[in-house]
Amino acid sequence: MSGGVSGEDLVVFVGTGTGADGVGPVLPMREAAVNVADLAVTRGDGVFESIGVIDGRFIELPRHLARLKHSAAMLDLPEPDVDAFARAARLAVGAHAPQRELLVKLLHSRGIEGSDRASGWVQVLFGTDHSEARSTGIRVVTLDRGYRHDIAQTSPWLLQGAKTLSYALNKAALREAARRDADDVIFVSTDDVVLEGPTSNVLVRHGDLFRTPRPDLGILAGTTQAAVFETLGALGFETSEAVMAPAELATADGVWLLSSGRLIAPVRELDGRSLPVDAAFTRTLLERTFGL
Amino acid sequence: MSGGVSGEDLVVFVGTGTGADGVGPVLPMREAAVNVADLAVTRGDGVFESIGVIDGRFIELPRHLARLKHSAAMLDLPEPDVDAFARAARLAVGAHAPQRELLVKLLHSRGIEGSDRASGWVQVLFGTDHSEARSTGIRVVTLDRGYRHDIAQTSPWLLQGAKTLSYALNKAALREAARRDADDVIFVSTDDVVLEGPTSNVLVRHGDLFRTPRPDLGILAGTTQAAVFETLGALGFETSEAVMAPAELATADGVWLLSSGRLIAPVRELDGRSLPVDAAFTRTLLERTFGL
Repeated sequence: MSGGVSGEDLVVFVGTGTGADGVGPVLPMREAAVNVADLAVTRGDGVFESIGVIDGRFIELPRHLARLKHSAAMLDLPEPDVDAFARAARLAVGAHAPQRELLVKLLHSRGIEGSDRASGWVQVLFGTDHSEARSTGIRVVTLDRGYRHDIAQTSPWLLQGAKTLSYALNKAALREAARRDADDVIFVSTDDVVLEGPTSNVLVRHGDLFRTPRPDLGILAGTTQAAVFETLGALGFETSEAVMAPAELATADGVWLLSSGRLIAPVRELDGRSLPVDAAFTRTLLERTFGL
Repeated sequence: MSGGVSGEDLVVFVGTGTGADGVGPVLPMREAAVNVADLAVTRGDGVFESIGVIDGRFIELPRHLARLKHSAAMLDLPEPDVDAFARAARLAVGAHAPQRELLVKLLHSRGIEGSDRASGWVQVLFGTDHSEARSTGIRVVTLDRGYRHDIAQTSPWLLQGAKTLSYALNKAALREAARRDADDVIFVSTDDVVLEGPTSNVLVRHGDLFRTPRPDLGILAGTTQAAVFETLGALGFETSEAVMAPAELATADGVWLLSSGRLIAPVRELDGRSLPVDAAFTRTLLERTFGL
């Protein structure tokens, strides 16, 4: 199937058991399996990245590969062969049925317990239609993350700031949001600092100043956020990484959640109260940053 | 292979894709695979149990099945068919090469993303030799869990008290213990309450009183702990579920970590300071509780 075009989602394995270039053949996802004893399966003991692909262009691939390496180091995992991951990702995207937006996931696991050999693969998935979230905006609730803002410094074994496969609580937080009739979540620390979403970074506008929570707050450094900051800088706005209180969200001229698939989603409602949405400005950011 | 005896570890699938009794055939573990898109793999989005089997007897099977159900409910997972899990476990143990101690793992996942069909299976593994830990004892360090003691009540979306597949931080804590030249960990809350180990419950003795942290402290209710409390009661000791400060560990007449595989391990050193170990009493508990 390599080089062809498939109407289904695809997987390419990386590393163990593949060829000399560290990349396996293109497989239909339904045939791609991992052993039940792999620690990704039994303990969420691995790391991942989700990368947007627009018109065949990878969005921020080097930043994603660097973050995969960083997360792996935080978990004392073998260093991922990011060149092989990049080759596998290009191979899989090339073989996938073209679509305006695709989503590529990289997964790097500790492998089968006791084997001392990491396992890894790339998935290419049809992108979800996020047009409504990007234009109309989303409803968000703040939820307690349970940690102080300095937890990554005091207690690195809690793995805050690593993008691990142990995402059950992020998914539980999204279900809690749904129960509260909302679409997404902004986590807040126990000492009242704005952190991140379960799968996104937070962008806050006051006038010409755009801020995002500092990456040393036990959160994931945002790849989409970094790209958007470059656009904002080019547009002449001031940007900064900051420590913000939740009250500053309520007074903002705009709040957005930034992520690799949905990209830029304005928050139109926070904890049941309306926030201003500048649809034209969001369109400008999407176009200038991602060519959308 | 069903009904036979295998020299390797075995897997039996449960539910989706199995027969009328909800139980699949016995498979060698190396041939048992799960799709890469299963949410157990990609998000640690499922629950599990580990059950000791001694001389073919399951230790506390009903308590483990009840806890699997409880964890699944906390994650809004479909209710696991615990009768099918029990049948699969018996089938797999019957087919496994006999050993004094085996370990059975039950895994119940949200299944392939978008499928709305849970996936699940049972693994039977050769038990590890824990004789030295049980007799000589283990070295333990206390580590900050980052949460207050009341987190399960205030913030249930953090899933404290559910045995999820998202165990990366528990494994990271054990690596931190190894870096500190220790074997295991006792987590402590940010407000100075003794919680649990990454894969164990804590038992603390002062005179004739044996205490364990209260299960509403955002910890897992212990199956081994429950069995040991029954033995202690039968031996005429007082038992209670309590809120304890870490300082109470240092003054204890004995501290043990209780879990399904290692069962009862006395703590001989806590944060570098010796604790008393009563080897004869630990042997009595192992024998009376588990027939070991």
